[in-house]
Amino acid sequence: MPNLKNNITDLFGIQYPIIQGGMVWVSGGKLAGAVSKAGGLGLVGAGSMKPDLLAEHIKKAQQITDKPVGVNVPLLYKYCEEQINTALDLGIKIFFTSAGSPKKYTSFLKDKGCKVVHVTSSPELALKCEAAGVDAVVAEGFEAGGHNGRDEITTMTLIPQVVDALSIPVIAAGGIGDGRAIAAAIALGASGVQLGSRFAATQESSAHDNFKQAIVNATSGSTMLSMKKLVPVRLLKNKFWEEITVMEENCTDPAKIQEHLGKGRAKAGMLEGDMNEGELEIGQISGLIKNIPTVEECMKDLVAGYNQAIERLNRKLF
Amino acid sequence: MPNLKNNITDLFGIQYPIIQGGMVWVSGGKLAGAVSKAGGLGLVGAGSMKPDLLAEHIKKAQQITDKPVGVNVPLLYKYCEEQINTALDLGIKIFFTSAGSPKKYTSFLKDKGCKVVHVTSSPELALKCEAAGVDAVVAEGFEAGGHNGRDEITTMTLIPQVVDALSIPVIAAGGIGDGRAIAAAIALGASGVQLGSRFAATQESSAHDNFKQAIVNATSGSTMLSMKKLVPVRLLKNKFWEEITVMEENCTDPAKIQEHLGKGRAKAGMLEGDMNEGELEIGQISGLIKNIPTVEECMKDLVAGYNQAIERLNRKLF
Repeated sequence: MPNLKNNITDLFGIQYPIIQGGMVWVSGGKLAGAVSKAGGLGLVGAGSMKPDLLAEHIKKAQQITDKPVGVNVPLLYKYCEEQINTALDLGIKIFFTSAGSPKKYTSFLKDKGCKVVHVTSSPELALKCEAAGVDAVVAEGFEAGGHNGRDEITTMTLIPQVVDALSIPVIAAGGIGDGRAIAAAIALGASGVQLGSRFAATQESSAHDNFKQAIVNATSGSTMLSMKKLVPVRLLKNKFWEEITVMEENCTDPAKIQEHLGKGRAKAGMLEGDMNEGELEIGQISGLIKNIPTVEECMKDLVAGYNQAIERLNRKLF
Repeated sequence: MPNLKNNITDLFGIQYPIIQGGMVWVSGGKLAGAVSKAGGLGLVGAGSMKPDLLAEHIKKAQQITDKPVGVNVPLLYKYCEEQINTALDLGIKIFFTSAGSPKKYTSFLKDKGCKVVHVTSSPELALKCEAAGVDAVVAEGFEAGGHNGRDEITTMTLIPQVVDALSIPVIAAGGIGDGRAIAAAIALGASGVQLGSRFAATQESSAHDNFKQAIVNATSGSTMLSMKKLVPVRLLKNKFWEEITVMEENCTDPAKIQEHLGKGRAKAGMLEGDMNEGELEIGQISGLIKNIPTVEECMKDLVAGYNQAIERLNRKLF
């Protein structure tokens, strides 16, 4: 795949510019290690982990592969500084930060010799990331699972605008589930891609089997950007989602919605498999996902699909 | 451009698989004729036109070019049957229908030797179009301007799912503003593309100059899918949009919102240039659009941009 080598593969020292996004309760050391072993970049999602647990997962990933592994640190969690220090102590050199200001840790991490990427949902925020000194940005569209931006900018419109605004590499995220979409993202100007949902439904993901099966069963309209008056988050439709949606449509006080959300919903749904009461964060591309392969099989499919898409673009179509 | 020839160019007898979407108040005969003359497929948007006015616009397009020109007929308008008969009388052989059942006129039009395409926003509806006997579908994503689907499926996730579900050609729409996005759509499996906003901001479009300038001034987050409790429609944010949005956020009775919408808002905004009180239907890709070229210049840019994107995909990146 010589044409999959670019500035993102050089930046991280990886074979394919395919990154597995950090996902709470889903992307532990087993998944991140497997993705890096298969030639992509695996990220341990620190979001749901206390520093001790994060250390365990980083070590697990490092036992699986000698290749680079990164950590995704959402900056809204109270442990984020300890998480960063834990990862540094274990030799992590690649940090993806999100859900907070890129100014907060970028210089600190760059001074330690790390590569830093921040996740953004608009060209305006992407420019702030570049000004903060990050090496690259993840530009994540409206179709992405989990937390999302308020402007509802889709991947198709976001990527070219971020690419035009910045001089650093752009990693496209949101709605990318197969090799065709990787080719589409590169056509739009991205240098690499970040996939969440596709890797959530692999053997090595720590998502509960019920959740993996729900991803496979999803159709194109099975997710919706929800809880916009709290923090916008894309959820798989289930009983919990319906309750929240009825409350939102009836203009229920956001504090009451927060109360109904309560604590532990995401863990209950995604890790423990409660498909009714759990909060199921997943992307709109779930509708395309029809199997639960190993990470190695998944990566082979992605690369093969990418190459087929390029071949198709190069011949008289049909 | 031999690689831009495919089953869509064969279907319509055109040079490039680039279609100018029908847009109320914006896509008259001047725009449709210019797009067809430049090698794409121009569509006269019948939506806002009484049959007599439609006839005038079709004749105008036919005076500009001998090449095929189509008509877009939204099936929710009371004049739609007369519109179809008017177009047939004037020799129109290409019909894009939307906003209604594909069963309604497809057989009738096919029996008259016409090519029929229906616009859809989900794989499920696309299958109904195929069953109704259409020659192709337009699969239009959440980022598109104007009327939109309820499932909020973006172009990036919609296209591959529609392509996988159907055996007829798929035309991608929503969020396509330059040649990079055309390449992306083809990578996702589409056989052609339909562009609205890009052609709305050309010299030949009948959009008011104020509206064209507002498209050029738009940034990535300047539009929003609105009026979801009536019919979801993507609008440029302005005073009218703010009023409607406040009403929606406060759970105002939809009948009151309908009353505030009133009549003639779209004409006032898009044709007559009232940027405060008018309803401005436009796509999210407005943020990318930075000029008001002639259609010929626009088509040259699209094709050149497409070829550059393909070249980029074929070489070691950067």
